[in-house]
Amino acid sequence: MKATVSRQAHFNAAHRLHNPNWPDEKNAAVFGKCNNPKYHGHNYELIVSVTGSIDPETGYVYDLGKLASLVQEHVEEYLDHKNLNEEVVEFANLNPTAENISVVIYNILRKHIDSKYTLKITLYETPRNFVEYGGN
Amino acid sequence: MKATVSRQAHFNAAHRLHNPNWPDEKNAAVFGKCNNPKYHGHNYELIVSVTGSIDPETGYVYDLGKLASLVQEHVEEYLDHKNLNEEVVEFANLNPTAENISVVIYNILRKHIDSKYTLKITLYETPRNFVEYGGN
Amino acid sequence: MKATVSRQAHFNAAHRLHNPNWPDEKNAAVFGKCNNPKYHGHNYELIVSVTGSIDPETGYVYDLGKLASLVQEHVEEYLDHKNLNEEVVEFANLNPTAENISVVIYNILRKHIDSKYTLKITLYETPRNFVEYGGN
Amino acid sequence: MKATVSRQAHFNAAHRLHNPNWPDEKNAAVFGKCNNPKYHGHNYELIVSVTGSIDPETGYVYDLGKLASLVQEHVEEYLDHKNLNEEVVEFANLNPTAENISVVIYNILRKHIDSKYTLKITLYETPRNFVEYGGN
Amino acid sequence: MKATVSRQAHFNAAHRLHNPNWPDEKNAAVFGKCNNPKYHGHNYELIVSVTGSIDPETGYVYDLGKLASLVQEHVEEYLDHKNLNEEVVEFANLNPTAENISVVIYNILRKHIDSKYTLKITLYETPRNFVEYGGN
Amino acid sequence: MKATVSRQAHFNAAHRLHNPNWPDEKNAAVFGKCNNPKYHGHNYELIVSVTGSIDPETGYVYDLGKLASLVQEHVEEYLDHKNLNEEVVEFANLNPTAENISVVIYNILRKHIDSKYTLKITLYETPRNFVEYGGN
Repeated sequence: MKATVSRQAHFNAAHRLHNPNWPDEKNAAVFGKCNNPKYHGHNYELIVSVTGSIDPETGYVYDLGKLASLVQEHVEEYLDHKNLNEEVVEFANLNPTAENISVVIYNILRKHIDSKYTLKITLYETPRNFVEYGGN
Repeated sequence: MKATVSRQAHFNAAHRLHNPNWPDEKNAAVFGKCNNPKYHGHNYELIVSVTGSIDPETGYVYDLGKLASLVQEHVEEYLDHKNLNEEVVEFANLNPTAENISVVIYNILRKHIDSKYTLKITLYETPRNFVEYGGN
Repeated sequence: MKATVSRQAHFNAAHRLHNPNWPDEKNAAVFGKCNNPKYHGHNYELIVSVTGSIDPETGYVYDLGKLASLVQEHVEEYLDHKNLNEEVVEFANLNPTAENISVVIYNILRKHIDSKYTLKITLYETPRNFVEYGGN
Repeated sequence: MKATVSRQAHFNAAHRLHNPNWPDEKNAAVFGKCNNPKYHGHNYELIVSVTGSIDPETGYVYDLGKLASLVQEHVEEYLDHKNLNEEVVEFANLNPTAENISVVIYNILRKHIDSKYTLKITLYETPRNFVEYGGN
Repeated sequence: MKATVSRQAHFNAAHRLHNPNWPDEKNAAVFGKCNNPKYHGHNYELIVSVTGSIDPETGYVYDLGKLASLVQEHVEEYLDHKNLNEEVVEFANLNPTAENISVVIYNILRKHIDSKYTLKITLYETPRNFVEYGGN
Repeated sequence: MKATVSRQAHFNAAHRLHNPNWPDEKNAAVFGKCNNPKYHGHNYELIVSVTGSIDPETGYVYDLGKLASLVQEHVEEYLDHKNLNEEVVEFANLNPTAENISVVIYNILRKHIDSKYTLKITLYETPRNFVEYGGN
């Protein structure tokens, strides 16, 4: 019996959308207010979903307390109250869109969760804008 | 790398559920209070989801600002504060259930979003009742 | 020891904002899309709050089950799936704004709740627009 | 045209996570505070999703009022205000994790919903922890 | 300049409503399903609100990080995953209604927050039922 | 008959908490991660509440469409996607805590809303932290 378990977490960060290979005009046209060089920020709400078989001994697919700890240690502490562009190495050359933040979080957590489990990231940048990424 | 981006929107409308080919008794039995000939209404919460590859230049699957504009122009302005049965041509001969409203919104937006993207509609008729439709 | 207990309920209804003493142009100017003669509608979320002393025998200010039943019988069944303008007598000569709907609900419930309790109505017309009314 | 319709419901229950084949130390280590022998509890929020074709006569995939009644009769009345471990026979020998509660609810509802429909259960144990189960 | 700052927290607990001075029939009649001797439970959502002057040096009424720590140490750790009737001494002779739980939390926190601040407790027992208590 | 009408709005901004009259150690001790010199950010959810008499001609306390426009023009457009410390003149010498942001928003809107109405600001910095300010 397969099921999916999910844990919601959150972090607050500053960012700016910008492609350094483009002239300023194109950055302003494509990214609008999100291109503000002084940065803006968000309360990111993150849902981490793990799919696998229900263990008959525990009744768990994956211990949600353990998942919460993994997310806290490797994602929340790493990204919370940070400037993503300037302080997070993965975004040194990668635009911190919600899509790319989801890919970075997926890649971080994928190393800590056995490959027998499917992993999926849902990231709310605002209550009305969100992204899902499942690794391919 | 494929991801799904979603944008939430909303509109308020009146409607009534009714099949003109049925006698009144059957309409009342099947649709209950929703068959009220004087109409009732809802705050519809709409989530539009677009799946595609992350563009390496922008870091976007689809510009959520552009998606928000498409939804505002073609769905919110078209349906907000309307009587769906009497004022929206798609429902002249189609019962405005949440399922059919989702199909109508899908068909409207499908024309404006390149076919390389997958499109999915989620429509909350109330906070506890909702529908998902992905075009098939 | 005084405390306030609250119960949330909901109903769906159609309405139209209109002042019959005004010319059409003024109605359109003041009420905008809400003046649509074909009606539109909302999922109204209602919070009924009762303030009083905590009864030392029950530990209750007011039995929330009893409050839920009162609200269901006198408000939800009375207003749900109705056209407020055409089917609810209190609005025969009263514009069904969120303010006036709150007053009507207050007056209905005030008769059923002992005057030793303070009563307050909070009514969400949409998730972003709401009204509070406490009887004066 | 296929669509998915969902109905949200809820129940409040007490439970305890425990494997009777394990020594107390292992139960405490694996289940932590959830192993408390005096029980703790949750407001479970349940979403029941049914996928099928939209009936051209009604515009419904499945009557959400009928679905709400099925869920109320067979799930809410059965589990609400219960001690899952001591009062619900399905958990006599099954650990009442969110995963297993989802499986039990699925199995209960599966009997009442025609097999031409796909059924899926989403169960929130807390606003931040939830499980999805679709029957395999 | 006076302002109110609030912090939301949560805990999960089991409880039962019961007055030991009453016969079983009266307990069943007054408390209904909440009287179940095997207990049921809730995810309690707690909002702690502190009113005072804005300190011109910090711009804070009260450090919300400090408030979060106080709530975690004295309320969440004390009540989370507990059976309120059997394991929390304040309820040895006090019915654990939402009203009384609010009073107990108020009295616990009042000792740790300087009397120059006004304190108020809001406690959601379910998303639709909640209580407010401000100490008198 | 007096009532309160409220409108919810939102903006995203970057900020940093810092008192320039203090040494770095004290800033770090008092403001913790919020003192990060590279900034972090939030999705601010804002509720603007106006209290006054219900106008018998319109049924309105205050036109919520007009209130929404005032908030959009004077608050959302002014603060959205900004770095509060560096780009908003009111914070040139004022620490942008949630308390002070509420005071600034109050002072901005107070000029545009007749003094016969009471005005109150509620500002959510995160879903779990919020501030209320009513002008004194």
